[in-house]
Amino acid sequence: MGMLSEGLTQVLIPAAALVGIAFALLQWYLVSKVKVSGDSSNGYSGKLIEEEEDGIDSLEVSIKCAEIQNAISVGATSFLFTQYKYLSVFMVVFAAIIFFFLGSVKGFSTKSEPCTYSQGKLCKPALANAAFSTLAFLLGALTSVLSGFLGMKIATYANARTTLEARKGVGKAFITAFRSGAVMGFLLAANGLLVLYISIILFKIYYGDDWEGLYESITGYGLGGSSMALFGRVGGGIYTKAADVGADLVGKVERNIPEDDPRNPAVIADNVGDNVGDIAGMGSDLFGSYAEASCAALFVASISSFGISHDYTAMSYPLIISSVGIVVCLITTLFATDLSEIRDVSQIEPSLKRQLVVSTILMTVGIAMVSFFALPSEFTLFNFGTEKAVKNWHLFFCVTIGLWAGLVIGYTTEYYTSNAYSPVQDVADSCRTGAATNVIFGLALGYKSVIVPIFAIAIAIYVSFSLAAMYGIAVAALGMLSTIATGLAIDAYGPISDNAGGIAEMAGMSHKIRERTDALDAAGNTTAAIGKGFAIGSAALVSLALFGAFVSRAGINTVDVLTPKVFIGLIVGAMLPYWFSAMTMKSVGSAALKMVEEVRRQFNTIPGLMEGRVKPDYANCVKISTDASLREMIPPGALVMLTPLITGTLFGVETLAGVLAGSLVSGVQVAISASNTGGAWDNAKKYIEAGASEHAKSLGPKGSDAHKAAVIGDTIGDPLKDTSGPSLNILIKLMAVESLVFAPFFAAHGGLLFKFL
Amino acid sequence: MGMLSEGLTQVLIPAAALVGIAFALLQWYLVSKVKVSGDSSNGYSGKLIEEEEDGIDSLEVSIKCAEIQNAISVGATSFLFTQYKYLSVFMVVFAAIIFFFLGSVKGFSTKSEPCTYSQGKLCKPALANAAFSTLAFLLGALTSVLSGFLGMKIATYANARTTLEARKGVGKAFITAFRSGAVMGFLLAANGLLVLYISIILFKIYYGDDWEGLYESITGYGLGGSSMALFGRVGGGIYTKAADVGADLVGKVERNIPEDDPRNPAVIADNVGDNVGDIAGMGSDLFGSYAEASCAALFVASISSFGISHDYTAMSYPLIISSVGIVVCLITTLFATDLSEIRDVSQIEPSLKRQLVVSTILMTVGIAMVSFFALPSEFTLFNFGTEKAVKNWHLFFCVTIGLWAGLVIGYTTEYYTSNAYSPVQDVADSCRTGAATNVIFGLALGYKSVIVPIFAIAIAIYVSFSLAAMYGIAVAALGMLSTIATGLAIDAYGPISDNAGGIAEMAGMSHKIRERTDALDAAGNTTAAIGKGFAIGSAALVSLALFGAFVSRAGINTVDVLTPKVFIGLIVGAMLPYWFSAMTMKSVGSAALKMVEEVRRQFNTIPGLMEGRVKPDYANCVKISTDASLREMIPPGALVMLTPLITGTLFGVETLAGVLAGSLVSGVQVAISASNTGGAWDNAKKYIEAGASEHAKSLGPKGSDAHKAAVIGDTIGDPLKDTSGPSLNILIKLMAVESLVFAPFFAAHGGLLFKFL
Repeated sequence: MGMLSEGLTQVLIPAAALVGIAFALLQWYLVSKVKVSGDSSNGYSGKLIEEEEDGIDSLEVSIKCAEIQNAISVGATSFLFTQYKYLSVFMVVFAAIIFFFLGSVKGFSTKSEPCTYSQGKLCKPALANAAFSTLAFLLGALTSVLSGFLGMKIATYANARTTLEARKGVGKAFITAFRSGAVMGFLLAANGLLVLYISIILFKIYYGDDWEGLYESITGYGLGGSSMALFGRVGGGIYTKAADVGADLVGKVERNIPEDDPRNPAVIADNVGDNVGDIAGMGSDLFGSYAEASCAALFVASISSFGISHDYTAMSYPLIISSVGIVVCLITTLFATDLSEIRDVSQIEPSLKRQLVVSTILMTVGIAMVSFFALPSEFTLFNFGTEKAVKNWHLFFCVTIGLWAGLVIGYTTEYYTSNAYSPVQDVADSCRTGAATNVIFGLALGYKSVIVPIFAIAIAIYVSFSLAAMYGIAVAALGMLSTIATGLAIDAYGPISDNAGGIAEMAGMSHKIRERTDALDAAGNTTAAIGKGFAIGSAALVSLALFGAFVSRAGINTVDVLTPKVFIGLIVGAMLPYWFSAMTMKSVGSAALKMVEEVRRQFNTIPGLMEGRVKPDYANCVKISTDASLREMIPPGALVMLTPLITGTLFGVETLAGVLAGSLVSGVQVAISASNTGGAWDNAKKYIEAGASEHAKSLGPKGSDAHKAAVIGDTIGDPLKDTSGPSLNILIKLMAVESLVFAPFFAAHGGLLFKFL
Repeated sequence: MGMLSEGLTQVLIPAAALVGIAFALLQWYLVSKVKVSGDSSNGYSGKLIEEEEDGIDSLEVSIKCAEIQNAISVGATSFLFTQYKYLSVFMVVFAAIIFFFLGSVKGFSTKSEPCTYSQGKLCKPALANAAFSTLAFLLGALTSVLSGFLGMKIATYANARTTLEARKGVGKAFITAFRSGAVMGFLLAANGLLVLYISIILFKIYYGDDWEGLYESITGYGLGGSSMALFGRVGGGIYTKAADVGADLVGKVERNIPEDDPRNPAVIADNVGDNVGDIAGMGSDLFGSYAEASCAALFVASISSFGISHDYTAMSYPLIISSVGIVVCLITTLFATDLSEIRDVSQIEPSLKRQLVVSTILMTVGIAMVSFFALPSEFTLFNFGTEKAVKNWHLFFCVTIGLWAGLVIGYTTEYYTSNAYSPVQDVADSCRTGAATNVIFGLALGYKSVIVPIFAIAIAIYVSFSLAAMYGIAVAALGMLSTIATGLAIDAYGPISDNAGGIAEMAGMSHKIRERTDALDAAGNTTAAIGKGFAIGSAALVSLALFGAFVSRAGINTVDVLTPKVFIGLIVGAMLPYWFSAMTMKSVGSAALKMVEEVRRQFNTIPGLMEGRVKPDYANCVKISTDASLREMIPPGALVMLTPLITGTLFGVETLAGVLAGSLVSGVQVAISASNTGGAWDNAKKYIEAGASEHAKSLGPKGSDAHKAAVIGDTIGDPLKDTSGPSLNILIKLMAVESLVFAPFFAAHGGLLFKFL
């Protein structure tokens, strides 16, 4: 037994979650002190005089900002509610599928069964597992929806406030954006932990000593979380990029008006998109990873010596790691908000990067403490039919290597997507000879950027796999996600800054303000890429852990590539990310074409629009994005949700195992390269626009041939980095967790086609 | 025993090879009847009067064509000789590596050893295997070089003749181009078979009854063939695309002069590139696939009941299949050259497609006959440590499913890359909104185009794997390659027509002639894509067969994804195609930038160049392409050649098995999508240029905004379809065959790092 008592564990976990929530609320309160109404009580009128060089009245600006913020918020809320209406139908149908598939494993019998791993004991009937898995699925789905929704609410609350604060200087604006990101990060991390913790306690009332059944059903929580995340990412991704590409193609390329110009009819849809895609989608996504990593670790632990000997504290090791993570991130946040101050735009990126390093170092200490206090010094883990003796410091290494692999991925992503380094500058330089070379160089950059992350993931997998089998992989994934609150804070910071810039442009604020928000936004592009890197890296580890759990639960002990069943699964699985990307890219392309037509129509038929005398019909563009995204999210969603069901039912667990391994190893590459190519193109364009060096000036200014070529690259990158790429993490995770949940059914009744042949 | 006697087999194989060579020489003779000199004895002057509407004297045109042909031929020959100089160094060094690595397996002992599979017998020493593997490597390398070189010679001989024949009508031109392709196809297929057959006979003088050792060493033949193919493809690919992209970016985009305009300084380099990249590279590539598939099949057979009971005819089954293939292709060729006639451009594509169907149907009959006559009705095959009972009709199904899977891949490729169907037309339509949507739609098309080929490959693998284990896969690959002579004929036809068009433009021939060569070329783009589809599909099967042979030879019986060693191999292997593509794309990009600068410099500094009064300095552009290609082919080549050596030596055979499986399942997807995306962009551009439908006219004409967007897509597609994509087949095959050759070394001394840890 470890040193931490069961009672203390039961206090520590919810306490950490509550501290996280309290901290989030505090940050929210601090952000709310910035007033966006025209009310003179905002108290800043005195300080604003220096900014009024363009003759813009601060009251008028403030009112305009409030108006725009309101439009964005209303658009985002209404889209999410429409989306949730569709998703609730899906949830009900899929919950029924889970119940009937899992219930049928033992013919809906209500008799208790002998346990699989705790020999000589009786476990709860399969029907109970069906019911509780369904319940866990619904809980996960609701928590995921809640996470996305809260994130969106906070972001739309913070965007105009960031804009207004930018009038006082870049430091104030940075803190507002960053605090808002932190609200989201902490709420999500704490919420995810709390709901999972409470579910376990409630499930235990029924399950009692049957931990096998308990943690088997709890995996439904991960499935619920990730399936909502899939639709959130895909739907949101199509929404935002249809609007973005459409707005850019007509506005920037044809009409030569700036980005986010209020005359562009698609501008509100574009800004709404940032919130429903990048914020709500990312929130659901990372919540899903977190839920799945926890479930995978708990499931493997439950069939290891922890579970069989009912060592509660050791069993809760994954949850304690997350609890400590919240505290570590809380301290880390203070470094950005209170212990240092941004005085110049050049300090933004280093400050965000420091967050990553500080949280990683502190967390390493935290992991050491948890591993020492919560775990017995030696124990055995389940390892595909055999047992593996493991020491507590082995687990320390597993979690830590996951954590540090995340940092390596983050830094590599930064190197390949920030315009402070040569890769992006080379891409920008290739714009000299036009869009074609820009695209060739950008694609090559994306391909190249997978090398280091893959080696980092491979090393993390090798070490944790060797030390602690599949449990090691699961806790390595949790290690990478343990600083999720900080990761999400710097990630959400990006779209908030992007929106802030949009609002500044639309409200007609001075050039100076726009420059400040642009600087915030450029750093945001890089942090968004880093966030995607984390999401992908953790997804790789999580899905491998889920894959291992699936294989254990399905009762197979080897997945041999040298069998036809497995190999065809492997090659078809490796194809799925391409099929999926083809769907999402085409969806964005088609929706963008419709958006282009509508924007052109408005410019051509609404007199006075170009002159700024008449407002465009924003609502029509919002409707196009909404309709396209709701319609087009169904086929890729169906591909991901149905593949494990069809493969498992028709071809059986071996082929399904092949599919999971194939889609994992291929999907990771596609996802990383797509995200980084897109991020690099975006920042190559920003590099030319900012013109901060001699080299950059020689390529610019805005409107030069090189800049036009860069805009084409940026537009191509949009669906790659914000729709296809980030959805692929969910593809690989979701197929794995779905297979895990349905494993008893596939093991009992799967492989119909081969049985028939 | 089968019904075919050993004596008859020994006659049949060389006879078929000699018939193939004789047929190739006959076709060459027929092509040579078209005279390119200005000599009035060409006998066509009478018929040419109607073509002289532009006042161009036929004698003058003929002389000009001869000049241009000569320039292209000299350029291509000189490049290949320079490349061979580099490659001979590589060959010597690598031959030494093979000898020392394999010799060291048993410490260079000259003592005979007990056989591994033929129990109770003595086999030749490891040192002999080292020596003969090295010899086989050199033979394979030389045959590969010869294949590529002959192909190039024929193509540069045929290009101007096709142009001149185009004056008499599209049918005559088609036959000239097609016959020349057939020369290459038959020479390659027959040559490959003959050298392999003779090698086996000569090796047998030493090996005698030790068939295990004999067929183990013969695998070096495949390694030699594919390693030359790698450098041929990569070097040739960089050469041709640097020239092509550079010529297009300045000529078509900046200077607005037509493709292949003689004023463009890079035009000769561009046309040379078609011959060294598409022709010589493709020739080496498919020869490599053929050699490897044969070696893999022979090796697996040698450790099965055929080999152990010394059934010579059954053992030669793979070679007999190829022999029958030559005869089948011979008959098929007559359908295109003698049994039908092209009267209209619309008949070109159907006629080429008919070749595929006819050869496939005839070959199915041939396979049935060979399987019935050459094989015993029942026998056992080696299956990773166990034995598998197989019937002769099982093998018939294995070969046939490979053959038909090739047809499915060919047809799918045609559907996605021909502008007669909606996918390419949709891509063309997306040019309306600019280059960005064109690229998004093109990428989506490429991703989508992998679905059907992967299912076809998966089904072929499942059936042949289930029926006859790894031997089944190897003969399925041979089935796909059995009609290689026809495949290569229609494939080589493409670049020959492309060159013919270039020569027509450069010689200043009339618009009518150019239209005819353009029609030939458009069909050629599609057949080139089909050829690449075959190359990739067969590479997938071949490398799986080689992978199986490697695993057998290395003495491992399972490749379990659920072990850390294998899994890290799998994920890193899946990354290699990206790393490799990053290198080749970047190389083309950088070389193209240099080419652009040189072309711009010439246009800016040579007075009278744009007016056509002065000739540009073609040689300088040829030099840039040559230097770039020779320098840049080394890093990707090293990546492919060193990965198996390093992985096997440091990490051992399990990790290497993972790397092979990972790179196979991931590389196939990247290769197919890259080839088809590029082919689709090229034909989308041609679709707009040809303006053959109302829809196409609404996008054109040349120079419209939509056309400009299409040109950008075409340029991006160049390195994808002609450098990265096709080189990836070789990556996956070559790593597998190299692992197979070095397997005894890795099994004896590999995995140093893990041993050390």
